[in-house]
Amino acid sequence: MTITYLTQGLHRALLQFPDRTATVFGSRRRSYREFVGRVSRLAGGLQQLGLAPGDRVGVLSLNSDRYLELYYAIWWAGGVINPVNTRWSAREIAYALEDCQTTLLVVDQTFAGMVEDLVQRVHCLRTVIHAGDAESPAGMFSYEQLIADNPPVPDAVRANDDLAGIFYTGGTTGAAKGVMLSHRNLWSVAAGSLESIALPQHSALHVAPMFHMADGMFLLAQTLRGNTQVVLPNFDPAAVIQTISSEKVGVALLVPTMIQMIVDHPGIGAADLGALRRIVYGASPISEAVLDRTMARLPGVDFLQAYGLTEMAPMISILGPEQHRAEGRAAGRLRSAGQPSWFVDVRIVSEDGRDAAPGTVGEVVARGPGMMQGYWNKPQETRTALRGGWLHTGDGGYLDPEGYLFIVDRVKDMIVSGGENVYSAEVENAIAQHPAVAACAVIGIPDARWGEAVHAVIVCRPGHTEPTAESLRQHCRELIAGYKCPRSLEVRKDLPLSGAGKVLKTQLREPYWKDRGRQIG
Amino acid sequence: MTITYLTQGLHRALLQFPDRTATVFGSRRRSYREFVGRVSRLAGGLQQLGLAPGDRVGVLSLNSDRYLELYYAIWWAGGVINPVNTRWSAREIAYALEDCQTTLLVVDQTFAGMVEDLVQRVHCLRTVIHAGDAESPAGMFSYEQLIADNPPVPDAVRANDDLAGIFYTGGTTGAAKGVMLSHRNLWSVAAGSLESIALPQHSALHVAPMFHMADGMFLLAQTLRGNTQVVLPNFDPAAVIQTISSEKVGVALLVPTMIQMIVDHPGIGAADLGALRRIVYGASPISEAVLDRTMARLPGVDFLQAYGLTEMAPMISILGPEQHRAEGRAAGRLRSAGQPSWFVDVRIVSEDGRDAAPGTVGEVVARGPGMMQGYWNKPQETRTALRGGWLHTGDGGYLDPEGYLFIVDRVKDMIVSGGENVYSAEVENAIAQHPAVAACAVIGIPDARWGEAVHAVIVCRPGHTEPTAESLRQHCRELIAGYKCPRSLEVRKDLPLSGAGKVLKTQLREPYWKDRGRQIG
Repeated sequence: MTITYLTQGLHRALLQFPDRTATVFGSRRRSYREFVGRVSRLAGGLQQLGLAPGDRVGVLSLNSDRYLELYYAIWWAGGVINPVNTRWSAREIAYALEDCQTTLLVVDQTFAGMVEDLVQRVHCLRTVIHAGDAESPAGMFSYEQLIADNPPVPDAVRANDDLAGIFYTGGTTGAAKGVMLSHRNLWSVAAGSLESIALPQHSALHVAPMFHMADGMFLLAQTLRGNTQVVLPNFDPAAVIQTISSEKVGVALLVPTMIQMIVDHPGIGAADLGALRRIVYGASPISEAVLDRTMARLPGVDFLQAYGLTEMAPMISILGPEQHRAEGRAAGRLRSAGQPSWFVDVRIVSEDGRDAAPGTVGEVVARGPGMMQGYWNKPQETRTALRGGWLHTGDGGYLDPEGYLFIVDRVKDMIVSGGENVYSAEVENAIAQHPAVAACAVIGIPDARWGEAVHAVIVCRPGHTEPTAESLRQHCRELIAGYKCPRSLEVRKDLPLSGAGKVLKTQLREPYWKDRGRQIG
Repeated sequence: MTITYLTQGLHRALLQFPDRTATVFGSRRRSYREFVGRVSRLAGGLQQLGLAPGDRVGVLSLNSDRYLELYYAIWWAGGVINPVNTRWSAREIAYALEDCQTTLLVVDQTFAGMVEDLVQRVHCLRTVIHAGDAESPAGMFSYEQLIADNPPVPDAVRANDDLAGIFYTGGTTGAAKGVMLSHRNLWSVAAGSLESIALPQHSALHVAPMFHMADGMFLLAQTLRGNTQVVLPNFDPAAVIQTISSEKVGVALLVPTMIQMIVDHPGIGAADLGALRRIVYGASPISEAVLDRTMARLPGVDFLQAYGLTEMAPMISILGPEQHRAEGRAAGRLRSAGQPSWFVDVRIVSEDGRDAAPGTVGEVVARGPGMMQGYWNKPQETRTALRGGWLHTGDGGYLDPEGYLFIVDRVKDMIVSGGENVYSAEVENAIAQHPAVAACAVIGIPDARWGEAVHAVIVCRPGHTEPTAESLRQHCRELIAGYKCPRSLEVRKDLPLSGAGKVLKTQLREPYWKDRGRQIG
């Protein structure tokens, strides 16, 4: 009879602190009482539009307070959310909607123009809701009108193994797959993350995309805790600085690239960011250089890295604040992804499926309360990913004697050069320490002699002279073995990023490999 | 595929901090590495003795480090623990063992003498293990020998809805019922309680009985957190004071009666209890008088009250540290059981099953991740207790406008006097404020005129003059309505307590009601 459900936090808020501010979006502020009122009316609207229990509702929108309302209204109504990656092409979005038979789609003003195209591509799409301040385009229902016109309905209390969301993964590897996460999956991980990512009575900032599992989990934890959530539509360093200051944001979820852009932004000089206590970051380790600059500017802030995968909802490991300070850094832990997070088991397995010897690189596998139900409509891929009751991450890594997990690379990102395995993360770490480098990525490119050669792509820091390939090699030679150092160099204005903030190496590799046989997946 | 299991914390400890001290019992200290080693060997011993997955193992023992090992070894082996109430008679214990067909029983030295009687009464009992330092009596297996003789076995990883424990409830009401709690029940509540009862890197003290769900949950949370657990065999205020001091205990789970005996004990004068940060208490609210004395002596300690029931594994609500300080006390919250704890829904229902109006007394019902699977072999009682998907506590209470839960009485403890309902808790609160009162209980006794009359039973504080019935009435008259004040008074050396530290009112009532028709259940 055990019952766990995601809307529980709203009932708690109504009972205990209805007048606390739930959401802030620009000048719009809503209390938990207003938030739950809107959620329960919007749920009524969804049901009135034909939503049946378990139906998928797509959300294609920039971040907003309405996105938060949608997560909860869809569950309150009994539905399943399908948060769509806004950086995808219409073709890719249509695939994600069609694949899991999404019948209802919510779009904001930014994506309203894509609807005509999507409706033609997605045959199951019956209804489109326009979530914006402006008038709704013809053929779309108005989000605000649905709230105004419908009385509140009772919570459907979908719970436990009921499907809560389908999150399409894509970006750095392969074709998109719909990760099915239950109420229990999401609830368990949020419950286990309260202490680390949802500090009591601290406002939280959403600037990473809310369609992504990382910010999705951040959102669930904040709501369970009953914190105030401040939402920015998308990432702009000046707006982040201004908002942290004006809204006294206590916790922010960012990716290292964002942290770098914030701390290097001139606007940070005069801002009062004294309320900020914790930066939660993911997608990749942070470079010592960016960390140093951030700590110097924001001495009251601590850092917490979360490593995970959508398939684990998404937490696998956590690198805590202590490990970002002197002792942890001296022990080299800043390059790790931390220790397995609460209730998660992590093993390293070699290709034959057996446990790798301690310190040896193998595939990272994990199990825990967040482990997905499977990929939508992909039983074969599900069996492969979950074989033996463990989620196979596809990431290569090792565990040190104290259980710190070091991700050496996405398995597919490994570069094989002259018979030696080169893990690009290690090379990137070396390059990032160069004073002129703001961001970097390392890929393998075709090489007649070595099979693959290590190739560096960098973004320069403003005011610094671009390094030459030779000077960068010399810098790296001080830090890593010669065969790992980049043979060639490309300087760009920015790196292509996935919704999760991961560098899209596929795009970087494409020009080099497009006429060759190597799979660049 | 979501997986939650109770032995997960041990794997975590082995990976991340094997050398940390797991248990302290007298002069015996064991690291997590030793602890898990003994658990996995003892599990091997249990399997070798014929334990099959799902088999019940009874534990009849005072608190010890071995009790902690047993919880985990039984799960590691695939079994289900049946922790037996040590205060019960042989007849009652035999009932609990026979009822759920417990085949294996572990006893310590204290209870070894009861085995002969139990074996004759309990036909399903096949095997008895003696967990003690002395040689095992004839016919019993030696706990230490099982560990010495058996190699470690792999963790059975019983998980999710697998039954983890059967906890027999009894004491204050009715016949004993076996509360079935799954791995998921216990794991969910422990996970949600980490922040409140298992402070990071603070040693925890077990002095409340480990067979009881309250200390059982405390134990699970400490193990998940990876804290050091200090175990005392039973309650002795001098030993508690000495142990908190010598082991630098940070968190202790106590009942108000214990707190009063500790703070009023002369030994507290010279002791250094500076490590103690938090006292978690339950079973009943604490009196302001005892709280004042404790806060004056231990200014660095905060207080957290947990209210619950075995059937909820056991958390229902929590009264946090702030509410024990001036503002919360001024608002009268010290008499409450706090707000619903994480992930738990609480409602107050009237006799017709509908929600009671706010502020109105009704039955407290709750649901959440800890809600039991049911009562062993009692489908009718299970249906009644869990009707409508909510656990019916049998306690009378109300919710204030901010969601604070006030337990006015066990429903059956309500006294009806002259047509007025008297909730004994309110009377007890008034009496407890009398300077000469150390502890008290209020019951209804037969009265020719009023049906029932309010009767007070008190324990006096040393060095104070016993109050007369008349002076106690006058004291109460200042605080509560006249019809609620005690008509008669009985002074005792101590109050009969259940294993959970609740006053056994049944025993207090018995002499007055034994020749009458009223059910004293």
